Amino acid sequence: LMSKFPSKNISDRFLQKNNSLDEKGRLAGQKNLLSCDNSDRDARFRLTETDFSNLFARDLLPAKNGEEPTIQFLLEMVDILTNYVKKTFDRSTKVLDFHHPHQLLEGMEGFNLELSDQPESLEQILVDCRDTLKYGVRTGHPRFFNQLSSGLDIIGLAGEWLTSTANTNMFTYEIAPVFVLMEQLTLKKMREMIGWPDGEGDGIFSPGGAISNMYSVMIARYKYFPEVKTKGMSAAPRLVLFTSEHSHYSIKKAGAALGFGTENVILLSTDERGRVIPADLEAKIIDAKQKGYVPLFVNATAGSTVYGAFDPINEIADICEKYNLWLHVDGAWGGGLLMSRKHRHKLNGVERANSVTWNPHKMMGVPLQCSAILVREKGILAGCNSMCAGYLFQPDKQYDVTYDTGDKAIQCGRHVDIFKFWLMWKAKGTIGFEQHIDKCLDLSQYLYNKIKNREGYEMVFDGVPQHTNVCFWYIPPSLRGMPAGEERREKLHRVAPKIKAMMMESGTTMVGYQPQGNKVNFFRMVVSNPAATQSDIDFLIDEIERMARDL
Amino acid sequence: LMSKFPSKNISDRFLQKNNSLDEKGRLAGQKNLLSCDNSDRDARFRLTETDFSNLFARDLLPAKNGEEPTIQFLLEMVDILTNYVKKTFDRSTKVLDFHHPHQLLEGMEGFNLELSDQPESLEQILVDCRDTLKYGVRTGHPRFFNQLSSGLDIIGLAGEWLTSTANTNMFTYEIAPVFVLMEQLTLKKMREMIGWPDGEGDGIFSPGGAISNMYSVMIARYKYFPEVKTKGMSAAPRLVLFTSEHSHYSIKKAGAALGFGTENVILLSTDERGRVIPADLEAKIIDAKQKGYVPLFVNATAGSTVYGAFDPINEIADICEKYNLWLHVDGAWGGGLLMSRKHRHKLNGVERANSVTWNPHKMMGVPLQCSAILVREKGILAGCNSMCAGYLFQPDKQYDVTYDTGDKAIQCGRHVDIFKFWLMWKAKGTIGFEQHIDKCLDLSQYLYNKIKNREGYEMVFDGVPQHTNVCFWYIPPSLRGMPAGEERREKLHRVAPKIKAMMMESGTTMVGYQPQGNKVNFFRMVVSNPAATQSDIDFLIDEIERMARDL
Repeated sequence: LMSKFPSKNISDRFLQKNNSLDEKGRLAGQKNLLSCDNSDRDARFRLTETDFSNLFARDLLPAKNGEEPTIQFLLEMVDILTNYVKKTFDRSTKVLDFHHPHQLLEGMEGFNLELSDQPESLEQILVDCRDTLKYGVRTGHPRFFNQLSSGLDIIGLAGEWLTSTANTNMFTYEIAPVFVLMEQLTLKKMREMIGWPDGEGDGIFSPGGAISNMYSVMIARYKYFPEVKTKGMSAAPRLVLFTSEHSHYSIKKAGAALGFGTENVILLSTDERGRVIPADLEAKIIDAKQKGYVPLFVNATAGSTVYGAFDPINEIADICEKYNLWLHVDGAWGGGLLMSRKHRHKLNGVERANSVTWNPHKMMGVPLQCSAILVREKGILAGCNSMCAGYLFQPDKQYDVTYDTGDKAIQCGRHVDIFKFWLMWKAKGTIGFEQHIDKCLDLSQYLYNKIKNREGYEMVFDGVPQHTNVCFWYIPPSLRGMPAGEERREKLHRVAPKIKAMMMESGTTMVGYQPQGNKVNFFRMVVSNPAATQSDIDFLIDEIERMARDL
Repeated sequence: LMSKFPSKNISDRFLQKNNSLDEKGRLAGQKNLLSCDNSDRDARFRLTETDFSNLFARDLLPAKNGEEPTIQFLLEMVDILTNYVKKTFDRSTKVLDFHHPHQLLEGMEGFNLELSDQPESLEQILVDCRDTLKYGVRTGHPRFFNQLSSGLDIIGLAGEWLTSTANTNMFTYEIAPVFVLMEQLTLKKMREMIGWPDGEGDGIFSPGGAISNMYSVMIARYKYFPEVKTKGMSAAPRLVLFTSEHSHYSIKKAGAALGFGTENVILLSTDERGRVIPADLEAKIIDAKQKGYVPLFVNATAGSTVYGAFDPINEIADICEKYNLWLHVDGAWGGGLLMSRKHRHKLNGVERANSVTWNPHKMMGVPLQCSAILVREKGILAGCNSMCAGYLFQPDKQYDVTYDTGDKAIQCGRHVDIFKFWLMWKAKGTIGFEQHIDKCLDLSQYLYNKIKNREGYEMVFDGVPQHTNVCFWYIPPSLRGMPAGEERREKLHRVAPKIKAMMMESGTTMVGYQPQGNKVNFFRMVVSNPAATQSDIDFLIDEIERMARDL
């Protein structure tokens, strides 16, 4: 249709009205309210008032005459999405409109999750999209603090829209030339920030930090016992892995999946701030060796999930060097601090690691998913994982096939996670990430200063948090006079869940809670959302106190 | 700004012009060329001619007065994307504009992949987005046949745009209530189509077929040797896995990663069509047992990567039952045929499998990534993978926490892959998928009929292909008189790469090639693109013959 109605004026944007968009109507019934032209570039999109109730998926491209309904359908979707984006940043909008599973399953008014044999009209599809957003959670809302990943970065969002439109796959240069190169350049930049000479090394983007951590264990095993690749774990002695009791559970999951067994994942004791005690690592290495086990791998966490603790990497690296162990740094959460001149010292020693996990989708605000595993030794990922599938990785292509990176992965097809991140880096510059990170840490410190001596609050650990994690109990008035003991513990354990439930029911804010070790349920506040301000921190505290008044 | 300029007329769509969008200009310099209103719904988006050369990421939301530039920036991106979509379906557009890695790395005119400390203007960002698409590959183009995943489904695309706008994570109902339920319902529907009673069982969407296959091996091991989870592979005897020599390399990758070792992945012989010979499976099971190994797992491929072969599942299932082995069906490519009443018989016996991999992002045209692992036994995924992380999976939430499915996964964070698929199913109905699949198989048969007796073509295997894979050699005129032998083999081996290189340089079409076993390079044509027609098949054949004229 675009070619049938060439536009005439200075801009090609215009508006059409067409309430009965049947096959004939699409061709004949259009009135150009505004018709524009901009001859040195592609035609701009045109907005039509379209009746989607008689249109179906089959009427869209590649259908004959499908172009106009396709564009109109996509624009209608964009209308829904841009309204969602605006409201997400509007503090008068709720963070969520909570419903129980059975309520959503029974079907809300006009919103039925069941699938059927027959197609729905595009009008219903658009309604379904609105409802999907309505009953979801606004993770970009300035008062959403529930997860390490929060915020809605506009550049990253645009990048994801482009990525899904390009709809390609990372396995070969052949079908993802630009994205493969972007990944390569970005990984090199990240390795430079880690401090590896000239940014040399290896790496790949993976579907999340758990998989990145799994990679680190796999390549450590391959480095020391390459025969396991062909002969299995029985070709190796009893191997043990070390990680902090505060570390992410994905190290244990990797131990289970890769055939080490969770019993061979040895948990290290931490100080009161949740940081590994290096002497405990060394003691446990010696103990394992005395039992005849073979220590293989140490994970140092840079930014633990709950406390935001940074293990002392340099001291751990000394021990790893002494005993010839693989040192992995899980910086899924804390890696972003490498972008900050003020805070990167918390990862001092990371340049001594053999591998590093770093999730830009957490502290750096990149949309989900975006996680990198970075490796100091070049070629080891391919050595560990390559299977040389002839149908994908032909050696006789006309281009330099060293850019076909798919065989390094444990995946075959691999989603394009790089573009949004690359685009954000272009758009913000390194200094933009730095400013974001510094601001989030400042906000956390604001919260810490606000509550550390405030009536009704107890901090889970003393001192300024290392990351944006602020962990605290709120003690409702009824518990304040109660003596320490099991009764108070039990009552306090139930406070955070109750407040959280009220928050979700009222939809005003969201923050996480959990127990840790022998500590009963406490709130874990984290800030990674660029939309959050001091007023949102104040709001959170006010909400907690308001809701807990009668507990 | 939307609130400062409330709209007045019947529709809220209008157009504004504002060439100098500085802070003042945004507030004062706007002229409403059309201003509309639709009071019972959200305000429609407004199009402004915006100067992005002085705007930066920091001017977008959550910045003060960031709403208007945010919407304009997103609309500008949508303009780029909708133009890309239109051209993708336009056969006068090239499939790709090929450049070598060093060319793109050196920087094309105005397109520089390097990242820097300082931010780029939004104008440059938009240019970068146009260039990213320009130098990429149009995987939705009607003449892109290079991969099992092709096509650009508009509903799926809209679904991905929404998914990235919602930007949440699948681990808990708490932050993905709608998506978690959609996943549950869709997995149940898929299990019903497999034929498991009442669609009961388990499953999860994973980041691709390789990971889904890895899950199947993990859960098989957990089923028979649950102690491996805690004690590692040394707690089990020497376990062996069986899969066809034509099967996907991910089974071997899983064997390597999970600690079995690739030598314990035993390859099964196939008939001339690439289908497993059941007697060979039984012989190899007996052989393994005689050596003292323990057969654990058999993978039957439903739709092999190169030949599109379907292993005889029922006969394999008989053997698995006899020897008490886990039967996995890798239907990453062929699973979609379950949606077709005409073709689903090719998977007869799949209901006897213990687990099934099925990638809607392949034959069903769902955008990347969308892969499911489906399991007949309920609860086994959680048993195998759960680590009960307190900070995510609190038992004391106010809702039914059995909907918190994250602990079943080997991932922690998990991308929302379900929505686009659910939305496509709603929009097309089961019959829409069926029509798509039947059409693709018809097109393949059209190609097969066209070339099977055509001069210059040799089929790699005889008979009508089972899936859309048509494998053939093109014999250039200069080789047609040559006697069989090593010289002809060597020359023929170089034909497909040369034609492919010419295709890519000219950008007119793309199709894959590879060797297989002792067969020299041949073309593997596959059809999964809903935009492809008979004329595109004809075009491909014409192109091959045109390019090979002088070889």
